[in-house]
Amino acid sequence: MLSKNQIKLIRSLQQKKCRDLHGMFLVEGIKIVQEAIDSDFEIHSVYSTDCSKFIPILLGQNSKFEISGISEKELEHISGLKTPNETLAVVRQKKQELPDFSTLKNRLTLVLDGISDPGNLGTIIRTADWFGIENIICSENSVDLYNPKVVQATMGSVFRVSVHYVNLVDWLKTNSVSKTASVYVYACTLKGKSIYEQAITKKGLVILGSESHGISKDVLTLADYQISIPSFGKAESLNIAVAAGVVCGEFKRS
Amino acid sequence: MLSKNQIKLIRSLQQKKCRDLHGMFLVEGIKIVQEAIDSDFEIHSVYSTDCSKFIPILLGQNSKFEISGISEKELEHISGLKTPNETLAVVRQKKQELPDFSTLKNRLTLVLDGISDPGNLGTIIRTADWFGIENIICSENSVDLYNPKVVQATMGSVFRVSVHYVNLVDWLKTNSVSKTASVYVYACTLKGKSIYEQAITKKGLVILGSESHGISKDVLTLADYQISIPSFGKAESLNIAVAAGVVCGEFKRS
Repeated sequence: MLSKNQIKLIRSLQQKKCRDLHGMFLVEGIKIVQEAIDSDFEIHSVYSTDCSKFIPILLGQNSKFEISGISEKELEHISGLKTPNETLAVVRQKKQELPDFSTLKNRLTLVLDGISDPGNLGTIIRTADWFGIENIICSENSVDLYNPKVVQATMGSVFRVSVHYVNLVDWLKTNSVSKTASVYVYACTLKGKSIYEQAITKKGLVILGSESHGISKDVLTLADYQISIPSFGKAESLNIAVAAGVVCGEFKRS
Repeated sequence: MLSKNQIKLIRSLQQKKCRDLHGMFLVEGIKIVQEAIDSDFEIHSVYSTDCSKFIPILLGQNSKFEISGISEKELEHISGLKTPNETLAVVRQKKQELPDFSTLKNRLTLVLDGISDPGNLGTIIRTADWFGIENIICSENSVDLYNPKVVQATMGSVFRVSVHYVNLVDWLKTNSVSKTASVYVYACTLKGKSIYEQAITKKGLVILGSESHGISKDVLTLADYQISIPSFGKAESLNIAVAAGVVCGEFKRS
């Protein structure tokens, strides 16, 4: 039986200010909860309609967190999903250290300027994980990483890819413009050189802009190259997560 | 002022059986409604909180459909969106003729086996439009093209890409296996040859499977090649619309 305080805490984590206050976030579904447990994130508590799944953990007595059996009705009450999926976990947020800029020259890093749709951010994180990208740098006005819809759309990749929020203009200006770091900065726009033609280094920063406004002017001027995915039809644009996938595929092409 | 019958019709179109019965579907938002009007789909009626946008059509008197001014409150009442967007249209479904199989050898065509998420289907249609793909062939158990969430996610591409529903096994068996048509059939799986290595013809059919079960066994056996997007990280899979984008990008690469 869930206590009033447990219910209050869990339900409050749908809101950013409460997630920030408690330093926690929600994860739903047996598969992604299992990924949370196996990750280096710290688990606060797990609630499940089928606790038998957690017997190995309970037997091993190596769990530092609480596991509570709950009814379907209780799960419905605390879940943010239309169709709750057996298990829900409260996980502690992790402080991610911003990587030293000079180390970014040897790897591919995504930079997101104002992504607002949680599903898109989550799918981009999942895509980054697929392509072995370790870091994503987001502008401060991007949607919150710990928004439940972001977390669900990552399908567990939230526990493997580091996502950082910075003032993009300051961060790029301070680090990149000096050029001592020699990290190439590519901006994906609708008017750049074709990704199939632009000589790309396969490494560096790739900036993707917001769904409705693209990359902000101040950020765009700090890029070395503008690149585009060639269009063969009449759609005005690609979904931003699809665009991220196509660009990553091209950068990772051997 | 909306009549009860108008409200009843519009609201009923959220359900597939009513869409099928009336042969109509919903489109929301001024931009996509404008695309509907400019397309060769037949418009049944338009409802808007700002009819001034339609003055050119009204003045031209060339509209064969009804345009009604409605209040914000009325729009909220008939809209399926959380945040209704000024204009809503009822559009007649269009019978799309299945292209002759032999004509598919000279172009790229997507084949979807059991896609169930409306956002994914819509995003795939948008992606296909970007890459100049004219036809998408769906298995009969795929989500309905005219589901409002599919239509919205296409961002207008629903009016340009033809989407057909067939019994995939029968359709492939009848047409492809004979090989007289010489249309190459590629199946995207997690265990195929890298899309960067497999010699691809740039044309033919590319099959993508459902979000949870992949391509069904019966369909898979009818493919000529299995291809995969190489993974460089730890994500179990890519989102299906992202995968479609990466594969289309590779097939369209010159």
